[in-house]
Amino acid sequence: MPKPLNIGMIGYGFMGRTHSNAYRKVNNFFDLGHKPVLKACCARSEDKAKAFADQWGYESIETDWRKLIERKDIDVIDIGSPNNTHFEIATAAAEAGKMILCEKPLAMNVAEAQKMVETVKKAGVPNMVWFNYRRVPAISLAKQIVDEGRIGRPFHYRATYLQDWTIAEDVPQGGAALWRLDAAVAGSGVTGDLLAHSIDTAYWLNGPITEVTAATETFVKERVHQETGKKEAVKIDDACMFLAKFANGSIGTFESTRYARGRKNYNTFELDGEAGSVFFNLEDPQLLSFFEYRNPEGQKTPSHLTGWRDIHVTNSEHPYMDKWWVPGCTIGYEHTFINALADFIGGLDKGEPVKPDFEDALYTQKVCDAVLESAKDGQWKKIG
Amino acid sequence: MPKPLNIGMIGYGFMGRTHSNAYRKVNNFFDLGHKPVLKACCARSEDKAKAFADQWGYESIETDWRKLIERKDIDVIDIGSPNNTHFEIATAAAEAGKMILCEKPLAMNVAEAQKMVETVKKAGVPNMVWFNYRRVPAISLAKQIVDEGRIGRPFHYRATYLQDWTIAEDVPQGGAALWRLDAAVAGSGVTGDLLAHSIDTAYWLNGPITEVTAATETFVKERVHQETGKKEAVKIDDACMFLAKFANGSIGTFESTRYARGRKNYNTFELDGEAGSVFFNLEDPQLLSFFEYRNPEGQKTPSHLTGWRDIHVTNSEHPYMDKWWVPGCTIGYEHTFINALADFIGGLDKGEPVKPDFEDALYTQKVCDAVLESAKDGQWKKIG
Amino acid sequence: MPKPLNIGMIGYGFMGRTHSNAYRKVNNFFDLGHKPVLKACCARSEDKAKAFADQWGYESIETDWRKLIERKDIDVIDIGSPNNTHFEIATAAAEAGKMILCEKPLAMNVAEAQKMVETVKKAGVPNMVWFNYRRVPAISLAKQIVDEGRIGRPFHYRATYLQDWTIAEDVPQGGAALWRLDAAVAGSGVTGDLLAHSIDTAYWLNGPITEVTAATETFVKERVHQETGKKEAVKIDDACMFLAKFANGSIGTFESTRYARGRKNYNTFELDGEAGSVFFNLEDPQLLSFFEYRNPEGQKTPSHLTGWRDIHVTNSEHPYMDKWWVPGCTIGYEHTFINALADFIGGLDKGEPVKPDFEDALYTQKVCDAVLESAKDGQWKKIG
Amino acid sequence: MPKPLNIGMIGYGFMGRTHSNAYRKVNNFFDLGHKPVLKACCARSEDKAKAFADQWGYESIETDWRKLIERKDIDVIDIGSPNNTHFEIATAAAEAGKMILCEKPLAMNVAEAQKMVETVKKAGVPNMVWFNYRRVPAISLAKQIVDEGRIGRPFHYRATYLQDWTIAEDVPQGGAALWRLDAAVAGSGVTGDLLAHSIDTAYWLNGPITEVTAATETFVKERVHQETGKKEAVKIDDACMFLAKFANGSIGTFESTRYARGRKNYNTFELDGEAGSVFFNLEDPQLLSFFEYRNPEGQKTPSHLTGWRDIHVTNSEHPYMDKWWVPGCTIGYEHTFINALADFIGGLDKGEPVKPDFEDALYTQKVCDAVLESAKDGQWKKIG
Repeated sequence: MPKPLNIGMIGYGFMGRTHSNAYRKVNNFFDLGHKPVLKACCARSEDKAKAFADQWGYESIETDWRKLIERKDIDVIDIGSPNNTHFEIATAAAEAGKMILCEKPLAMNVAEAQKMVETVKKAGVPNMVWFNYRRVPAISLAKQIVDEGRIGRPFHYRATYLQDWTIAEDVPQGGAALWRLDAAVAGSGVTGDLLAHSIDTAYWLNGPITEVTAATETFVKERVHQETGKKEAVKIDDACMFLAKFANGSIGTFESTRYARGRKNYNTFELDGEAGSVFFNLEDPQLLSFFEYRNPEGQKTPSHLTGWRDIHVTNSEHPYMDKWWVPGCTIGYEHTFINALADFIGGLDKGEPVKPDFEDALYTQKVCDAVLESAKDGQWKKIG
Repeated sequence: MPKPLNIGMIGYGFMGRTHSNAYRKVNNFFDLGHKPVLKACCARSEDKAKAFADQWGYESIETDWRKLIERKDIDVIDIGSPNNTHFEIATAAAEAGKMILCEKPLAMNVAEAQKMVETVKKAGVPNMVWFNYRRVPAISLAKQIVDEGRIGRPFHYRATYLQDWTIAEDVPQGGAALWRLDAAVAGSGVTGDLLAHSIDTAYWLNGPITEVTAATETFVKERVHQETGKKEAVKIDDACMFLAKFANGSIGTFESTRYARGRKNYNTFELDGEAGSVFFNLEDPQLLSFFEYRNPEGQKTPSHLTGWRDIHVTNSEHPYMDKWWVPGCTIGYEHTFINALADFIGGLDKGEPVKPDFEDALYTQKVCDAVLESAKDGQWKKIG
Repeated sequence: MPKPLNIGMIGYGFMGRTHSNAYRKVNNFFDLGHKPVLKACCARSEDKAKAFADQWGYESIETDWRKLIERKDIDVIDIGSPNNTHFEIATAAAEAGKMILCEKPLAMNVAEAQKMVETVKKAGVPNMVWFNYRRVPAISLAKQIVDEGRIGRPFHYRATYLQDWTIAEDVPQGGAALWRLDAAVAGSGVTGDLLAHSIDTAYWLNGPITEVTAATETFVKERVHQETGKKEAVKIDDACMFLAKFANGSIGTFESTRYARGRKNYNTFELDGEAGSVFFNLEDPQLLSFFEYRNPEGQKTPSHLTGWRDIHVTNSEHPYMDKWWVPGCTIGYEHTFINALADFIGGLDKGEPVKPDFEDALYTQKVCDAVLESAKDGQWKKIG
Repeated sequence: MPKPLNIGMIGYGFMGRTHSNAYRKVNNFFDLGHKPVLKACCARSEDKAKAFADQWGYESIETDWRKLIERKDIDVIDIGSPNNTHFEIATAAAEAGKMILCEKPLAMNVAEAQKMVETVKKAGVPNMVWFNYRRVPAISLAKQIVDEGRIGRPFHYRATYLQDWTIAEDVPQGGAALWRLDAAVAGSGVTGDLLAHSIDTAYWLNGPITEVTAATETFVKERVHQETGKKEAVKIDDACMFLAKFANGSIGTFESTRYARGRKNYNTFELDGEAGSVFFNLEDPQLLSFFEYRNPEGQKTPSHLTGWRDIHVTNSEHPYMDKWWVPGCTIGYEHTFINALADFIGGLDKGEPVKPDFEDALYTQKVCDAVLESAKDGQWKKIG
C-alpha cells in the first residue's frame, strides 16, 4: 500500500485545476510508493476555497497560506498562485521543511530565484517546478532521441510559442483571470509565461544558452485594469523574440507572442543536427516529427527513402505510454501534469531528486532576465 | 449536492478501466445532478476483482454478476465484459430494474439485440451503449455542422477503421486479453469491433443505410488458442469492406482491418455534400477538416479562398470543450467516455433518454449482420 | 544528334496541349536518340487546327485524320481525341504501320480494346497508352519500393479518385469541352475517365484483380446537351465504387466521383503490406508517404521510431528527378507526360517495348467493363 | 503575331537552364505581344557554350560577354552568371541600351547595387531581377490576400529558408558548380543566396524593414577549393538569423541555413495580422495556408469553424493558373520563372515597368548588407 502524501494546494485557478486532477489520478495509472491525499486547499476568499474544495475533494480549506504552511499534516506545498507570490511562499514553505511543487516561472526575477534555490538547498526539501511540457511523451521522446545520439552534432534550434488570445483591445488586464497581463503580478508577459517553457525545453534538449539578443513589443498600449476599472498602460511584453548561441556551438531563434492570429497553443521546436532532426508542435501533441539521416550505428537511410516521419507517440514503447491506454489512443494536455507528478513521486520513492527543480528553473530565469534586458538596450547579453 | 448514482461494474479489462476513470472524473468537470459512486466491481476471479477494486477505489467486489444485479445498493449495471456475455447480463439487469450502460457491440447478433431492446423497453430502464466516439468533440462538431445545414445534399460517405496489431502470426487468440480474436466470444472480428463504431457514426451523421454488399478476409488462418494451447482455425474476419446505399440517396464505402501496417487507430470518415464536406481521423482527434463551398445563408466562399480547413477543436465554443481546459489544450481518448457519461447523467437529471441507446445499437447490429451475410454469399442485402 | 520522330497529333483539347508540350520539351531534359518533330496536328475544324498549330508550332495541319495517317512524313500518330474515336483511328494507324500513342481509356469497351491489341500486335508497331500517372516520380518510387521488397506480403489496396467539378446542375453535357459527360462519346463517366487511372496504377503496383463487385450512381439525372440545347438524360456514371480481390491474395476498395466537394484531383492509393505501406495523393504529388516496419534485410524499425514518413520526391536519386532541377524543387502535372514520352522514346532507341501499352490498357478495360456490369446486376464479376 | 524579342543569355548553369526553359515555353501558355528568340548564349568555354546552345536551341554562341552586348541583334541581356559578374555586365548592358534580366542577388554589395540602379535609370532600359518566388501562384495569392485587406493590422512576420546540402565536410568550395560556397564569387553565403529571397518576399508582402540585429555562423571552417585543390578557409555565412522591425509596426524573425538536416527547400513565411494570417512553404508550393478571423466586410468566421485552411492554389481564379492546366493540376518550380517572364513581357507590351526591378533589389541588398554588418559587431542596424 502506498504511503499518504499530504497535499496543501495554494491557488484555485487554471493551474489549481490541472494539479488537483493530477493528484487524484496519478495512482490509478502509475504504480507508486506514495499516494497524494488532498488535505487542504487555500485561497484568500473563503467562498472560492470552499467551492474549489467541493469540486476536487479537498478535506479542508485555508484562507491564509501561512497557516497552511504551519500545518503539521501537510507534506507538500503546491504553489499555483500568481507569480508575484512564489518567492514569499516558497521561502516560508522550505523553511518549514515542506516539499515544494511550484508553478513556473519560478520567480519574478533572477534575484528572487537565486535566493529560492539557496533556501531549498539549505532546507534539503524535495522540489520541482511544473515545467509540464517535458512530460509530453513526444517531448520526452525527443530527449530520448537526442540521448541515443540520433541528432549528432547540433546546428540549429528553433522555437516558437504563439497564441492569439489577447489581440482584442477590449481584453482587460489584472484580476483573478487576467493577471498574466498585469506586469506587477506576472513580472513579464510572454517571456515568463510562454518563452519560459520554450527555454526550459531547449535547455533540456540542447543544453545551456550562452548569449542572447532580443526585442520585445507591446502592441496594445493601454488596457482597462480590472481592479481600478481604468485604462492603464500595459507594461508586459505582448511579444518577444531573440537570437541565441548555445554552449554546444549551435545557434537558435526563439519567438513568442499572443498576437499570432490562428495560433492557439503553437509551442513548437526544431532541433537540426548532423545525423538527424526533430520537430514538435504542441497543437498536435501526439506527434513527433523525426528525420533520420544516419543512425547511431552509422547506417544512412537510403537516399530515395529519406523523409520526415510522423511518429504517433502512443506506442507502449514510448515514454509514459505504457501507463495509459492502448497503442493509437491519445492522451491530452492534463496528462503532462500527471506524468510530471508521477516522476516526482517516483523520485520520492527512491530518494532521488527530480528535474526540473528550482535550480533548473533558475537557469531559465537567467535567460528570461537577459532577454528582457537585451530588449531594453539592444545589446547581446551573456547568460551568467 | 448531486445525488449518488451507485455503479456496479462488470469487467476489469481495457473497458473496465476507461469506464472507471470516467466515473471518478465526471463530476470534477461537469456540473451534474448525480454523482457516480464506485459501489462494486465484478470479475470471476476474486484476485482480479480485488486488484481492480484497489486500483480504482471500488467499495466492494463480486465474483458472480448475478449477485451484483441482485444487490439493492446498485443503480447502474455497467457491462464491460466480452461480447458473448452482454445478452444474458443485460436481460437480467433490465428485469431487475437496473439502468444499463453496455459496451459495444450490443450483442452477438440481431436476434439477441432485438430481444435486448424489447427487454429494456418493457422494463423502462435508462440505457446507453458506449459508442464513445460520438463524444469526440470533433465528431460532435461534425454532427453540429450537418445539423446546421453546412453539408447540404449528401453525396458520399467514406469510412475506414484501420489497425495493424494482429499481423504477426504468433499473436494467439482467446483468453482475457485476446478474446477479440476468438469468434466464439467476440461474435465477429473487425466487423463488430471496429466497423460497429464506423456504422454508428455514419448513422448519426448521415442516417440509415438501406443496402450493402461486402467481402471479408481472414489473412492468418490459424492461431494458437490461449485456452487449449493448440493451433486452431481463426474464425473471425481479419478485414471487412462493404459498399453501402443510404436512405438519403448518398452512397458509401466502409473498410476495416487489423492488417494495415502503420495504421494504429485510423478511424476516419468523410462526408461530402453539395454545400460542404467534413473529414475526421481518430489518430489526430483534435482536428476536424471542413471544406465550405457555401454557407447556409447562401454565401459562397470566394473561389480563390476555398480550401480544407483544419479546425482545432479546442475552443470553448466546441462541444464539451468549455468543460475542460483552455483553448488550444487537447483532451484525449479517455475523455470520450467521460463526455458520454456526462450526457447519460445529464439525461438522467432531466428524465430524458440519451442516444446511442440499445435501439440505436440494434440498428448497427442489423448492418453488421447484413454485412457478414453478404460476405458469405456475395449478394446485396437490404437492412430490415 | 537525335533522329527526328515525326509526330501527327489528333486532338487539340486538354490532352492535345499536354502532349504537345511534352514533344517540345523532352529533349531539353532527357538525352535521347530521337527528337520529336511537330509535323502536323489534326482537327475537324480548320480554324481550330490552325490556331493549335500556331500555338504549339506544328508545321502543318490536317482536318481529316485519315489523311494524316496516310502521310509518309508521319512516324507517330498521337490519339488525343475523344474516346469514341480511338478504335477507328488506332486501327487505321496500326494498319498504316504508324507507331501509336493513345490517350486513355484505350477504347469504349473490351471488344474494341481486344481488337486494337490484336491489330497493333499484327502490325508490330510500337504503342503506348498515356497512363501518365505511372510517371509521377512518387508513384514510380512506390513501384520501386514494391520491387525492392519493402512492402512484403500485401494485404490491402485502397484507391480513390475524387473530384467535384460536376456538382452544379447547370453544367451541360456534350460538345468539345464537356464530352466527358456524354456517354455516347465517353463510353462511361468516372469509370473510364478516373478509375481507369486508379486501376492501371493498382495493376502496376499490386498485380491483377480477379473479381469485383460494384455500384454506380448518377446524381444529376438530366443535363442540357450542348449539341441539342435540350435537357437530356445523363447516362454516365457520376460516381463508381467497387470491392476487389487481387490475384496475390490482397483485397481492395476503389472509389471515384466528381461529387466530392473540396476534392479536386484527389487521386490516392494506399498499399498495406506485412513489411511496410505506402500512400500517395495526387494533390500533393511531390510526396510519397512510406511506413517501414521491417526492411528487406530483416531489420525492424525500432518501436519508438516507427512512423509514416513523407518522402519529398525531389532527390536526384528519385525516378526521373536527376533530369529536372535540383533537390527540393518540384515538378508538376505536365512533367508526367514528358517522363512518359521519354520512356517511350528510350524504348524506341533500344528497340524495346514500353509499358503501359495497348495490352496493359486492355486489362484495365476488362476491369472497367466488369465493374460497370456488376453495377448493373449487383453480382460479383470475374476478370477474364 | 507577337514581335520577336531577341535574347542574349549569359551563363549556362542552373539558372541558365531555368531561364532558357522559360523563353521557350512562355508563348505556348501566355498570350503576349512579344516572343523570345534564343539568339545567342555566352560562356567563357566554347565547348560549354556550344553544348548549351544545342541543348536549348540557341542560334549562336559567344565566349565574351562584351561581344554579346555589342551585338545589334540582341534586345535583352539575361545575366545568369555568378554574383561577382553582375555589376560589370549590367553596367555595360545598360549603357549599350539593352534590356536586362538579372539573377539575384543583384550585386555583391549596396555600393554596386546603387550604381546599377542609377545606370539603368539613366539608360532608361527595362529591367527585372529574377526574384522568381513572387510568381509562385501561392505567394502571389498571399499578396492578393494582403491587398484585399484580409490580414488587417500586421503583427508578425516569420521567415525561414532552410536547406541541408552543405553539411558534409567534404563538399568543396568554388568552381562552376559550387561557387556559391566561395565568398569571393558569391559575396556572401545564405544571406545573398537564400535570405535575399525571403527579404524580397517580405518586402512585397509586408513593406520595408527599418532595423535589424543579426548573427551568422560558419559551421565548417575549411573546405577544399576546387581551383587550388587545397583546404581554404570558408568565408561565407553557412547560416544567418536576424530580428527585424518593419515600418508598419510589425516585427519579424528571419533565418536561413544550409545545415537544417531534412529541410531541402524549406522557404517559409508566415504573416500574422489582426484579421487573418497566411503561411507558405516552398516544399509544398501548391498550398497556401490561410486563417480567416474576420473578412473585409466585417464578418467573423463563426467561432466553431475557425481553422487554418489549405488553399490548393490550382483554381483558374488563382494567379497565373488560368494559363496552365485544369483545376487540381499542379505546376512546379520552373513555372515561377515562366510566370515572371510573362509579367516582364506583359509590361513590355504595355510599356509599363515591372517589379521586382533593380530598385527593389537594391532595397534587398541594403537589408542583406545591414544584416551582415550587424552579425559582425552585434549592434542593431538601421536600413538606410
